[in-house]
Order: sequence, then structure tokens, then C-alpha cells
Amino acid sequence: MEIEQPTLIIDEVQVKKNIKKMVEKANKSKVTFRPHFKTHQSAIVGDWFKKFGVEKIAVSSLDMAEYFVDNGWKDITIAFPFNIRQIKRINKLAKKITLNLLVESFDVIEFLNENITSQINLWIKTDAGYHRTGIDWNDEGTLSKLIRKIKAATNLHFEGLLVHSGNTYKTRSKEEIIEIYEDTILKLKDIQERLLLQGFPKVKLSIGDTPSCSVIDDFSGIDEIRPGNFVFYDMSQLKLSSCTKDEIAVALACPIVALHPEREEIIIYGGGIHLSKEYLSINENQKSFGAIALPAKNGWGEIQENIYVKSISQEHGIIHASKEFQKQIKVGDLLYIIPIHSCMTANLMKRYYTTDGIEIRMMPPF
Amino acid sequence: MEIEQPTLIIDEVQVKKNIKKMVEKANKSKVTFRPHFKTHQSAIVGDWFKKFGVEKIAVSSLDMAEYFVDNGWKDITIAFPFNIRQIKRINKLAKKITLNLLVESFDVIEFLNENITSQINLWIKTDAGYHRTGIDWNDEGTLSKLIRKIKAATNLHFEGLLVHSGNTYKTRSKEEIIEIYEDTILKLKDIQERLLLQGFPKVKLSIGDTPSCSVIDDFSGIDEIRPGNFVFYDMSQLKLSSCTKDEIAVALACPIVALHPEREEIIIYGGGIHLSKEYLSINENQKSFGAIALPAKNGWGEIQENIYVKSISQEHGIIHASKEFQKQIKVGDLLYIIPIHSCMTANLMKRYYTTDGIEIRMMPPF
Repeated sequence: MEIEQPTLIIDEVQVKKNIKKMVEKANKSKVTFRPHFKTHQSAIVGDWFKKFGVEKIAVSSLDMAEYFVDNGWKDITIAFPFNIRQIKRINKLAKKITLNLLVESFDVIEFLNENITSQINLWIKTDAGYHRTGIDWNDEGTLSKLIRKIKAATNLHFEGLLVHSGNTYKTRSKEEIIEIYEDTILKLKDIQERLLLQGFPKVKLSIGDTPSCSVIDDFSGIDEIRPGNFVFYDMSQLKLSSCTKDEIAVALACPIVALHPEREEIIIYGGGIHLSKEYLSINENQKSFGAIALPAKNGWGEIQENIYVKSISQEHGIIHASKEFQKQIKVGDLLYIIPIHSCMTANLMKRYYTTDGIEIRMMPPF
Repeated sequence: MEIEQPTLIIDEVQVKKNIKKMVEKANKSKVTFRPHFKTHQSAIVGDWFKKFGVEKIAVSSLDMAEYFVDNGWKDITIAFPFNIRQIKRINKLAKKITLNLLVESFDVIEFLNENITSQINLWIKTDAGYHRTGIDWNDEGTLSKLIRKIKAATNLHFEGLLVHSGNTYKTRSKEEIIEIYEDTILKLKDIQERLLLQGFPKVKLSIGDTPSCSVIDDFSGIDEIRPGNFVFYDMSQLKLSSCTKDEIAVALACPIVALHPEREEIIIYGGGIHLSKEYLSINENQKSFGAIALPAKNGWGEIQENIYVKSISQEHGIIHASKEFQKQIKVGDLLYIIPIHSCMTANLMKRYYTTDGIEIRMMPPF
């Protein structure tokens, strides 16, 4: 394949290894594995999951749910608080598949009760410490009120409590991730117990973040895991110790358009509209918008030390790289940029290629 | 139009006013007006420019150049350092239109000399203080060497020096923008003079940033201006005082999916994959990922004070808003988010609608 312009490349072998590892871990813990497909957004990568026996998925939008239904998926959770403005399309979808939605208020459940025309399953979005949204795990009164409301409705089936511990993304070590995970589980089991005492059969528990799902081996007590990013991983996950360097399965191939050895900079064709403007802080004054690898026989090589995308505009990236490093490259060569956040990069690129040059289209934007 | 999910809305009347104002300013200063089309990326909005007599445009990629050629544009500058990997497609395009490219090294000019098959115009990318890329304005030796090289080549025509003063985006007042503009012009006129003494006919000068082009009224001495963002403007430009609140012509309509009055937060359907993760700092600890307006008869109303998108994930936005403010809204209502950087938001959304509900598609992603 001739790479002309910023092109997203995935390492198919490694992607399949990442899937296999997570499937085996879920099987070992006997939890339902419901991967989140927002990272790869592709029917083809979805098919790779099917080969490992995966039948249930999570997505982040109704558009994405419809896309995967068209590609044969029959059990989908839209892992986003239900948006009442989409009821017409939700009703169409609920006729065709097992549809699981998230709710977190009495009014929205009431709305669904009045407007839904087929059976759907509801998870209550529960906040176990991330504080993005959801009902506080400790708010037994509201939780039981919502569960009762769901159970009283004809077409609504209560599924359980769903948590996304996004606070694991703010940690600095594996130990901190484990700490947040264990804290989350303690809270969820506590409320599960209290709801049991109120007479509700044992409610199911679903957790979702890639750092927890990557670092934890034993998911005892949990019913379902929904990691997404693990399919590709990225520099953020590496920094969190969710993955190893080798497990990162995605890179953006970018042509070099100018060299400025005297100021230790390389200009690449590849900017914010390709990589996104997500960054990691290297120190107080310096951000990294991506790590760098040289082309290698099967894609890209080792992540280079002390070389990184130091700033980014819409189409340009400026790489910090020593004069010495620049001696081995020239204008027109490719550099591979390991993204900070692969979900955002893939979403911007809308398609990717395997290292063998096979095109993999993602869900179209319209 | 029924808005179901995050939807980008433009105020057509205001967009046309923004275009008219810039066209008139350019005409008054007798400079070529070559608007940068990377912000709107749409054939339809391009046609609005045509009605004001605009015939020359700038774009940021070859894909975008091809798209606008298909829509009738015949004089295009690809305002990005020429990427030698795209020579085949460049040769096809150069046959059809007046194509202007950017160069900044001897090797790339040599490459073009050997590989280009039709006449093209070259601007030398010149750095007048932004330090992203380009030849230092003061490096007379390199500039004259590059100009001579271009002039000696059969199919290459030397056009002039092209500058993007992106450093205006780092200013905090109108006065600082004027200062940078005036400094840029002094430098460019100085090198123009020195090149004249070396026997080169007066070289043309092209400048590009929206803050300068918005704030400056008299472009004497300059041959061409290439602003882009002014077509929509955004919160960044407002903060820089490049535009007034009324001149912002774009907003993302987002459904409210949850209210948390007790913690002064509103959850909207609208996140990083819609708005981008661009932000402005409100203070040391607080970022704003967008300003907020309520729906109004013709689109959206006044920008609300003390209410802003305080954090953002892929699909969610969390708005900081008082209990008091939340009394007037409910789940399922729309809020309009004024983007921090409209180019990035439009690029993510891939289409927008006028306030009358007319769909405007942008350049397709593939």
C-alpha cells in the first residue's frame, strides 16, 4: 500500500490478541463480556469479536446501534443516558433486537413507560465515585424508587446497576486503579445487599472502564464488563499501565513535510483533525500529542525515547526530535504516531488499514 | 426541523454578513481576497462566497482541493507545505486549474522541478515569528536561493512569500494583535526591499490569520489575505476580540439528558466527538469547552453568563449551571453550545443545518 497522507494503521494480529486476552479473562471470571464498540466503530472488527463467541455489545449512540444492527448484532446496550428525543428510532430498533438502555431519572422512566412500544431492558446509571452522571450508589431511596417504577411498567425490564468508573483514567499507578476498582465493587455489593433486603432479587452489576478491565484478573461478584479501548489501546493506557507497549495496536502514519534540525523539530502532515488534540503532560510546561515510531517491516517499530509530538494545529504536527535522530530521515519519509487516545483518533479518521494494506471502513458519519 | 441529537446549526444571514464584511474590507484595501475554506468545507457555503465575486480560495489538503475543483473552483492554494507523496494527484489537478503550492526547501523545489508536468505557482512558506514552520523572514540567503531555484525551473512560477501569523491566537487584546500584524508587515516589507535590491521584481506578500484580518482595516502593502474562521467565528475569536458576540454564526444544538441541580450540573448529549476537546481557560483550575445559549425563535439567543461546558468526554458534556438556571429547563430540552473552535467542531460534525432547517453537507471524509 502506498501511503500518501495521514493514514491510520492497525496491527490486526495484535488487535486479535487483545480481544482474545479480554475474552479469556471474562470467561475465567464467568462474567458477560459486552465490549464497547465505540473505539473501533467497524463491522469488520466486530466480526473478529464474533469469532471469539462475543454476542453482546455496548455502543455510545443510537447511530452506532443502528449500524451494528445492520451488521448482524442482536443484543446491544446504548451506554449513554437515554435521550428522549430519539424515541421514534428507539421504538423501531427495540422491535428488532434485545435493546438495553440507561436511565437515571423518574421522568425518563415515566416517558419510556408511556412511549415505548416493545420490550426493552433498563440499566440504572449508577455513580460509584466518578461523578459524571448517574444516581449516587448510596442513594438507596432513589434507586429503589426507580427500580419499582421500572418493574411496574409493562414493556420495561429492570436489568441492574451500570457503572463507568472513569476516575481510573486519573490514576498514576496500577495500584490506584486496583484501589478504585475494589472501592467500586465494595460500594456496588453493599447497595446490592441493601436492595436485596428491600425484597428486590439480586440486582446485576455492570462495570465498564478499560483500565479496570485490563488490570483486574478476577471479576467475582460482577455480572458484566464493558471495556472498549483495549481493542487498540494507546499512550494514555500505556501511561496508566493498562497495557504494555506491545499491546498498542494502532498508529497514524504521517508524511514528513519539513525538517528543522537546528531547532530540533520535524513538521509532519498530521494534526488535530487526524490525531485529535488529546495530550499527556510530559512535565509542567510540555505536552505530548503523540509518541513516535519509525516504519518497520510489519508496520511500525519501537516507540522512540525523547521524541514526541510537541504541538499540533489543524493539519500540522510539530515533533520534537534531536539533530541526531533527524540524520536518518528525510522529507517524504513516514513517521508513525502512536495516538494519545485511540478512540478519538479513529473517530476522526473514519477508516483504517491493516499493516497488510486491507482497508477497514468505520461507521459512516451520515 | 426536529433536532434529535447533537446537530450543528449555522445562522445563514450572519455567515453572509461575515463574508460581505471581509470582502468589502479586502476590496477597500485592494488586496486579493483568498478565503480559506477549511472552516466550512462546504460547496454550498462556497457558492455564497461566489455571489460576492470571490474566485480564489485556499484549502488545507489535497482532498479539499479536489472537492472544491469538483464544485467549480479554478484557482486554489493548498496552504500546507507540499507533501511529495501526493505528486500523482497534484499533477492531475495542476492540469485542470491554477494551482498554488507552498514550499520551504531546496529539495522539495528540486523534486517539483523533476516531477511536475504542468505549470504551477509556488509561494515560499515564510516564518515571521510564529515558528511553526517556514523559512525565517530574515534569512535572505536561503530565500534568494529558493527563489532562484524556482525561477530556473520550467513549470514553476514564483508567486511570493506566504505567512501565517498564528501567534495572534496567543494574544490577550486587540492591541497585541495589531502589534503582531504591524511587526509582521515591517518584516515582510523589509525582506521584500532587500530582495528587490538583489534584482528580484517586487515579491508578492500573502497573510492569513483570522484575528489579524478581522482587526486590521487597512492592508496596504499586502497583496493577498487568506482568513478562514471568520465565516463562522467562535468563542476563541470572541476572546481575542476578533469578533463580536453577534458575529458568531455557529452553535451545536444538544439535548439535555440529565439535570443535577444539587451539584449545579447539566448533562448534555454532546461531547468531544462533536465539539472537539478545545478549551479556553476560565481561571487556573477551570476550563470551558463551550459557552451556552438557550433556543430562540431564529436559532439561539444570548450567550449566558456564568454557564459553560465544564468538562467533556466522548459523548457527554457537563455544563456548570446554577439551580436557578435549571428551573427553566427540563430533560429533553435543547441547549445551544457555542464552540471554542468552530473549524474543529465543523470538521467533526461533517454537516450542518441552517436555522431554517436546510441541510448543508460538507466534504465527505472519503
